[in-house]
Amino acid sequence: MIKTVSVVGGDLRALTLAELLEKDGYEVIVCGFDKSIDTGELRTAKTLCDALDSEVIVLPIPASGDGIYINAPYAEEKLSMDEFFSCIGPSKLVLAGHVSKKLADRFAAEGVACIDYYNREELMVKNAVPTAEGAVEIALSEMPVTLYGSSALVIGYGRIGKILTSILLALGAKVTVSARRLGDIAWIESVGAKAIYTDSVAAYAGNFDVIFNTVPSIVIGEEALAAMKPEALVIDLASVPGGVDIEAAKSLNRRIIWALSLPGKTAPISAGRIIKDTVQNILAELEVG
Amino acid sequence: MIKTVSVVGGDLRALTLAELLEKDGYEVIVCGFDKSIDTGELRTAKTLCDALDSEVIVLPIPASGDGIYINAPYAEEKLSMDEFFSCIGPSKLVLAGHVSKKLADRFAAEGVACIDYYNREELMVKNAVPTAEGAVEIALSEMPVTLYGSSALVIGYGRIGKILTSILLALGAKVTVSARRLGDIAWIESVGAKAIYTDSVAAYAGNFDVIFNTVPSIVIGEEALAAMKPEALVIDLASVPGGVDIEAAKSLNRRIIWALSLPGKTAPISAGRIIKDTVQNILAELEVG
Amino acid sequence: MIKTVSVVGGDLRALTLAELLEKDGYEVIVCGFDKSIDTGELRTAKTLCDALDSEVIVLPIPASGDGIYINAPYAEEKLSMDEFFSCIGPSKLVLAGHVSKKLADRFAAEGVACIDYYNREELMVKNAVPTAEGAVEIALSEMPVTLYGSSALVIGYGRIGKILTSILLALGAKVTVSARRLGDIAWIESVGAKAIYTDSVAAYAGNFDVIFNTVPSIVIGEEALAAMKPEALVIDLASVPGGVDIEAAKSLNRRIIWALSLPGKTAPISAGRIIKDTVQNILAELEVG
Amino acid sequence: MIKTVSVVGGDLRALTLAELLEKDGYEVIVCGFDKSIDTGELRTAKTLCDALDSEVIVLPIPASGDGIYINAPYAEEKLSMDEFFSCIGPSKLVLAGHVSKKLADRFAAEGVACIDYYNREELMVKNAVPTAEGAVEIALSEMPVTLYGSSALVIGYGRIGKILTSILLALGAKVTVSARRLGDIAWIESVGAKAIYTDSVAAYAGNFDVIFNTVPSIVIGEEALAAMKPEALVIDLASVPGGVDIEAAKSLNRRIIWALSLPGKTAPISAGRIIKDTVQNILAELEVG
Repeated sequence: MIKTVSVVGGDLRALTLAELLEKDGYEVIVCGFDKSIDTGELRTAKTLCDALDSEVIVLPIPASGDGIYINAPYAEEKLSMDEFFSCIGPSKLVLAGHVSKKLADRFAAEGVACIDYYNREELMVKNAVPTAEGAVEIALSEMPVTLYGSSALVIGYGRIGKILTSILLALGAKVTVSARRLGDIAWIESVGAKAIYTDSVAAYAGNFDVIFNTVPSIVIGEEALAAMKPEALVIDLASVPGGVDIEAAKSLNRRIIWALSLPGKTAPISAGRIIKDTVQNILAELEVG
Repeated sequence: MIKTVSVVGGDLRALTLAELLEKDGYEVIVCGFDKSIDTGELRTAKTLCDALDSEVIVLPIPASGDGIYINAPYAEEKLSMDEFFSCIGPSKLVLAGHVSKKLADRFAAEGVACIDYYNREELMVKNAVPTAEGAVEIALSEMPVTLYGSSALVIGYGRIGKILTSILLALGAKVTVSARRLGDIAWIESVGAKAIYTDSVAAYAGNFDVIFNTVPSIVIGEEALAAMKPEALVIDLASVPGGVDIEAAKSLNRRIIWALSLPGKTAPISAGRIIKDTVQNILAELEVG
Repeated sequence: MIKTVSVVGGDLRALTLAELLEKDGYEVIVCGFDKSIDTGELRTAKTLCDALDSEVIVLPIPASGDGIYINAPYAEEKLSMDEFFSCIGPSKLVLAGHVSKKLADRFAAEGVACIDYYNREELMVKNAVPTAEGAVEIALSEMPVTLYGSSALVIGYGRIGKILTSILLALGAKVTVSARRLGDIAWIESVGAKAIYTDSVAAYAGNFDVIFNTVPSIVIGEEALAAMKPEALVIDLASVPGGVDIEAAKSLNRRIIWALSLPGKTAPISAGRIIKDTVQNILAELEVG
Repeated sequence: MIKTVSVVGGDLRALTLAELLEKDGYEVIVCGFDKSIDTGELRTAKTLCDALDSEVIVLPIPASGDGIYINAPYAEEKLSMDEFFSCIGPSKLVLAGHVSKKLADRFAAEGVACIDYYNREELMVKNAVPTAEGAVEIALSEMPVTLYGSSALVIGYGRIGKILTSILLALGAKVTVSARRLGDIAWIESVGAKAIYTDSVAAYAGNFDVIFNTVPSIVIGEEALAAMKPEALVIDLASVPGGVDIEAAKSLNRRIIWALSLPGKTAPISAGRIIKDTVQNILAELEVG
């Protein structure tokens, strides 16, 4: 039975995680929250190495942006990965989010067990809700018309596409969704949206007041951008490289909003709860296993 | 058959109205849009009196804030009501929004026909959509949690309450609605929300992450404010005097957002289309009558 | 405080009412359930007059079909209204459903207080749910196509029209709703249905796979019937005289299903609970008053 | 370019398919519809062998129940598979539904190309709609309470489970869904239902008024059946062997409705359209390929 957990680095999501774990009866230590944030009654480690005494160490999403320092925006002083690896013992378990290939290799080389919780199916599904809500917030804020009655295109019918489609339909938008496979086309129609193939987006692009992209490859190229209504808005939710030909968008003067990492920005406490549920699932599986 | 319409004063809603009327074949003159706004190819009156040549004159919402000047935020020079009445002929029809008692009396005294389109049932119903979307935008923007899974209270089950309830349910919030009458209580339950009586709001106030008020009298008094979760958000959509005891809210340090006239702010083009539909209905009824 | 209630006549709804009142602590007597129905542990009156000892007597919906006998389909022997009035004392309160003008006059003449619970707003709203579900059941059962993707017309946007519209939209039907007033037209559009005026039903009648009528006057006349698709289905939910020109329908060989009193037929236990809630509201108001 | 298609055997679905193919410009021959059904202006083959002249032959769902005769309920005389194979040439393409292993082997042995359209993802997704509507129709018809307010369990969150869940939620039922995987649990919660693990169905079985099963293995065993409310209804939508321990259900006197092949029964014309779309997709892919 794991009893001690440290939460090292991260933002309000990580702090929410720490608070929820403590409520659940774990002994929790936090580290990297000594600037402009209130840690309440949580126990705070004096140094990074002090924080690595717990059985389980949780690093944020992403664990590290540059591979050199832990991602810790609320730390007074930077937390170095070198120090982390010099102090951590081989018996520890690290749970980290969005671990780069290079960092994963270093964990392996150092002989420290690391599980990337950002890959977990349940986290990705649950994160689709704050992502979709964040996308809707942007649309509501940026468009001079109501979503009710607007024509919206959702590119891609994966997790985010599904939840976004359902919200847009509920708001009364006229929703078209693009997908690649016949089975997804059938699904899209069964929920009451219009379906098109993703490779025909350019042919339909002129019909929409707002286009949400969820596909991480250039699906909105020059032709689609040229066909758009000039006042239409593109909200790109896809991770790097995104789905928009940025140069063409600039030269055509199209309105593109690149909205990344929405859960942490628009609903950090919900996002922290989602991480907590996921961490708990991982620990439960380890104990059963 | 009315053929000529002037749109005098107002914001992007009024300009949208002017453009749509012109598209429909009316000869349109606009007045009061000579500063920081693009009137495109619309015919612009040189003076207020020039604008009053048309058969129908449309004034904005509200027609006048102070009774002295027409509400014309994009006018380089103020448009005075005195000049308006000195130029307008007795055969003209004025359609104006949210006309004060005093202004209505002046129209009567001057012998100029004036219809207040802001009172029309269809406009009030249609405006509930941008109002509810605006309220949801504020909630999405201000809350650190998703609306999905949040506990929301909607006070009042009139036009805005009904549409807001339906959107919040669709987003996955746990929605409670308050009303006064048994019939409304039955309606609220039939759409899948929990119902309480408005006079028991204080007893339930501690349960909610967000409270939307639509009732224009003090329904969120000191007791309810004291009972609220400290981090809960109140979004007050009710017109003056609003529904919140402001002094108590301040002394208790509660988060209150007073959100008035949302349609014109969050969806001015949709709001302009709604005014256009309403103006058209009024003209059609006059011609039939 | 009322403590004793008799439930005289009626069907499974009345029996459900009796059981629920007993669960709430009332002393309950039932009468008229001695044939083909199981009254469980409920106390049964030997004669109609024995049943009239309680403080409150509940009669069914309708209280009497012919004015001569109480509506009591599960009574071995008929229960006569004459005997009812000869035994009942002047201090009793009768709660009865759908009381005819003639019967109401008799109650007045006999000096017996009678409240018609069928007129109560909350009962009418709540009954709209089983009515709409019953209408959907008929459509699902009778149509060779799915409601998903079908074109449906709902005539009238009152209680039943509203709930039926919302269910049909949720099932993925293409829904048009007719109404008479501009405000209702705006409401219909705001929930995502298409709106037409009720007096133009004939002009649109050819577009629909199924037509639900909720208006109790002839809105589907010869012209509309002639314009319908031959295979289309009409489900008439309106009380007498219904909304269909029956002779024209016969000569044109149209499929009309006249579906009356659906709550008691398709969901008698839910309908009984609704009556119980209403009876309870009436008693509570009497005690407060 | 394929120009000629025969539709051999089947029910109203097959006839709908034939009519739609003819409307699309194919030369269509039908065979096996000479008893109690109206083939309108479709060309009818005199013998089975005459029908096998077309380039493509479509057999129904299932193609054959016993491997000896083609499934042809509207054929005056039985259509034998032996005759079918003796007449059909090697250049023909057969599209058949739900082909048994044995029949597939025979097609291979005879050197006749056969594609099973019943396995196609888009058909399975689209068929989930009439299946779910049929299940709802049964529940509406058999339950003495409204689905609104009822507690419903859906076992399995595949195609049918997803669509059924969404309809039940829209009707206002309190919906719990069971699944096996964490990712599905997250999906279920994201659409607003309660989620449980399928292996814990017995522990929760006492909570529901109606249980829909979509999993084709015994998930409702003796323990679950014993725990159910006596008046609860089980609607089993799973193909053979179904999901209910039938013997235990009998000895416990539980209400089980085994509802198979709903699309063809409750919405044969919609089911025929779905087959037509699928046949068309297959032909289009063959021509591209």
